Formats: sequence, structure tokens, C-alpha cells
Amino acid sequence: MKKAVVLLSGGVDSSTTLAVARERGFEVYALSFNYGQRNSIELKSAKKVAKELDVKKHKIFNLNLRGLANSALIGDSEVPKGRKIDGEVPVTYVPARNTIFLSIALAWAEVLGAGDIFIGVNAIDYSGYPDCRPEYIEAFQKLSRVAIVSQGVTIHAPLLHMTRAEIIQKGISLGVDYSKTWSCYDPDAEGIACGRCDSCRIRREGFEKAVIPDPIRYQE
Amino acid sequence: MKKAVVLLSGGVDSSTTLAVARERGFEVYALSFNYGQRNSIELKSAKKVAKELDVKKHKIFNLNLRGLANSALIGDSEVPKGRKIDGEVPVTYVPARNTIFLSIALAWAEVLGAGDIFIGVNAIDYSGYPDCRPEYIEAFQKLSRVAIVSQGVTIHAPLLHMTRAEIIQKGISLGVDYSKTWSCYDPDAEGIACGRCDSCRIRREGFEKAVIPDPIRYQE
Repeated sequence: MKKAVVLLSGGVDSSTTLAVARERGFEVYALSFNYGQRNSIELKSAKKVAKELDVKKHKIFNLNLRGLANSALIGDSEVPKGRKIDGEVPVTYVPARNTIFLSIALAWAEVLGAGDIFIGVNAIDYSGYPDCRPEYIEAFQKLSRVAIVSQGVTIHAPLLHMTRAEIIQKGISLGVDYSKTWSCYDPDAEGIACGRCDSCRIRREGFEKAVIPDPIRYQE
Repeated sequence: MKKAVVLLSGGVDSSTTLAVARERGFEVYALSFNYGQRNSIELKSAKKVAKELDVKKHKIFNLNLRGLANSALIGDSEVPKGRKIDGEVPVTYVPARNTIFLSIALAWAEVLGAGDIFIGVNAIDYSGYPDCRPEYIEAFQKLSRVAIVSQGVTIHAPLLHMTRAEIIQKGISLGVDYSKTWSCYDPDAEGIACGRCDSCRIRREGFEKAVIPDPIRYQE
């Protein structure tokens, strides 16, 4: 079986991407990051999803971005609720995050002898992050061809041109249990999703449009 | 003053690169990595060099690559001594190291509002690492243009086409104190350089060809 490294945050997109990698016949090495995100529920979800989808190995890499980068996701500033999602870059942007994550995935892929990396970026229903665009994925793939001793890797972004509703329908067809996934940037003390941050709203709209009930609870 | 992030290991090349960045009029933000390297003397040297060359800020970023990548530099396997340096990739290669380092530098640059990153890679007297070649630097620069919200960065690799002797002569002309730099992969318990690993040999040959005495001590 061919090996693939799959970036797994524990959200809807990366969990669906992991299921797609398995569908395409890869032996999956899931990679998650403890990067100082304020929401550690995400990592618990990543563990549940990795177990549920029976990955070969799940590695959680420690990489504290606090003190280096500013972002509402890793700092103390407030996560915006109910803002207009208009393609503007929000305060939850973490500078160069996908580049950092992909570079570490690239190192692990070379060590494993894996020629494939999967990432769940999405260019349609996304939050306005520059490193979620097709030209970004292409540029990283080109970089990989000259960055390592082996031939480089193929970067798979199977959700790139899918709507959120299509992503959820695809995941359901592959047996993804979305009750194990996590999206909220700012849950309450009991671990209930806020329902109003960008990530919750994108998720909820996706389930609504897919006409599939979202199995997780929300504060409102 | 324009800001630049300079990758600083504390060796001859990165220290010279830092001096070049200052010569070109940049305010320097030095970035070093505690990545699990067996040789922590390197980081002490980086601190000395950063202080000596009066950087605006010196950040040491923790990033443990042990357990992810195999390399004689971060593991327990032996550092080769006296091998033929022939362009073959040696066991001291750390997969995707410069990609990981540059991606974190890119994040910091965006936070600082810096449009320039300096890296001391060298394509002539190098050890056979793929991520020290001109095509690698170009690919990373192209990636930066689409990876972050700002316009991307210019990657400066001022030593890329210089011989080791030219690098040392350049550094001397800029006042670099090479007694504060460190190169050895495998010092003894007292912190004396081995003199025979690739890195020591490349350094010593450089000083010999530059007809400048190397100010550090060697075991042999």
C-alpha cells in the first residue's frame, strides 16, 4: 500500500480529506499540530477521527506559535462572532500556518518514504486565508520537487473546488462520523460550540445546504 | 530602517550572512532553532554572535524534530568523520530542514512587517543538501508570494555562489569575530571541536584557503 501523510485538525474538512485518502487506497499517516491554539478540543477530535478512520499512525507535533505570530486563534484577542464572511482576511488568520504544517509534513513524508500529502484546504467556502488557494498548493508542490532528496511529493487537496455541502455529502458517503469532528474556534467552558464564529457558521451552513443534520450541539 | 529576518545557526555562514544583512542596511531579527540537534553549543554561539552583531531581537524557536526525522544531527547514529565530501547526501541531512526553518521565518516576517529573509546557504562548498541550491531558494521565494497576506518576501542568500574562503574573507572585512562561531557536528565533552566531521573540515579548508587563522581550537 502506498503511504500518505494527511494533515488532520479534527475539523470537517481534514476529516473528510482523510476519508478520501483512504478511499484512494493510501495507508494513512495522520499529522496534527499542537501549535498553541486556544481550542484544544480540536486535538481531542483529531484523535477520535484518527482512531475511527483507522489510520496507520497518528502523530501530534508540538510547535508553539504563540509569541511568534499574532492571531485570535492562538492569542487572547477575541474571536469575531457573526461577522460578514466576505473574503477579507480575518483576525483568526495564522501567518504561514499551512506552509509551516506542510513543511513538517514534507519532512515526515520523506522519512516514511511517502510520496503523497493530503491537505483539506478549500477555495470556495473558505475564510479568506491566502494559503488555501489553488496557486498556493501548486507553489508548494513545486517547492517540494527541489526541497528534499527524494523526488518531492504530490500535494492532494481533494476538497479544493468543492462547496461545503458537497464536502459533507462526500464524507457521509465515505462513512465519516461528523459527531467526532470539531469546528468551533471559541467553545464555552463545557466544550459546547459557540455557533457564531466563522468556523461554526461555515459548518452549519454546509450541513443545512447538504440537508443533513449536524450531529454536534451549539450554544445557540 | 527596513526589517529583515536572518536565520542564525551560529556557524560561519549564518554569522557572515547576518553581517551582510547589516551591511545592506537592514534592522536584523535573528531566528535560531532549538530543533533537537545533538550539539547545543551551536545555540550558545548563535547567542554570542547575535549579541556581538547587535541585532534588534534574537528569537530561539523550539521545534523538536527528534521522532519525526532521522539524522545523525538529531539522533544517536554516528557523525561520519573524514569521509569523502563528494556531493552525496550525508547522514547528517535533516529532511526539509530549510523549508521548515524558512516557513517559520516567513510567519515571523509577516508579523514584523519584514519583506526580507536572509539565509546562509551555499551552493559551492556545501555538503550535498538539496535545500541549499539556487533552484530551491527561487522556489521558496515564489511560494512566499502566494503563501501569506502580504506581498511575500525576498529571500536573500548572499553566500550562494561564494567559496568558503570568500565567505570568510567577506566576514572578516565586515568585522565578524569567528571565535564566537561554531561549526562542529560532534564536539567532545569539554566542547572542543572534533576537527574531522564534514562541517569542521569544510570550515578548516575555508580558513586555510582564505589564508586566515581559524580562531577556534580543535581536538586534532
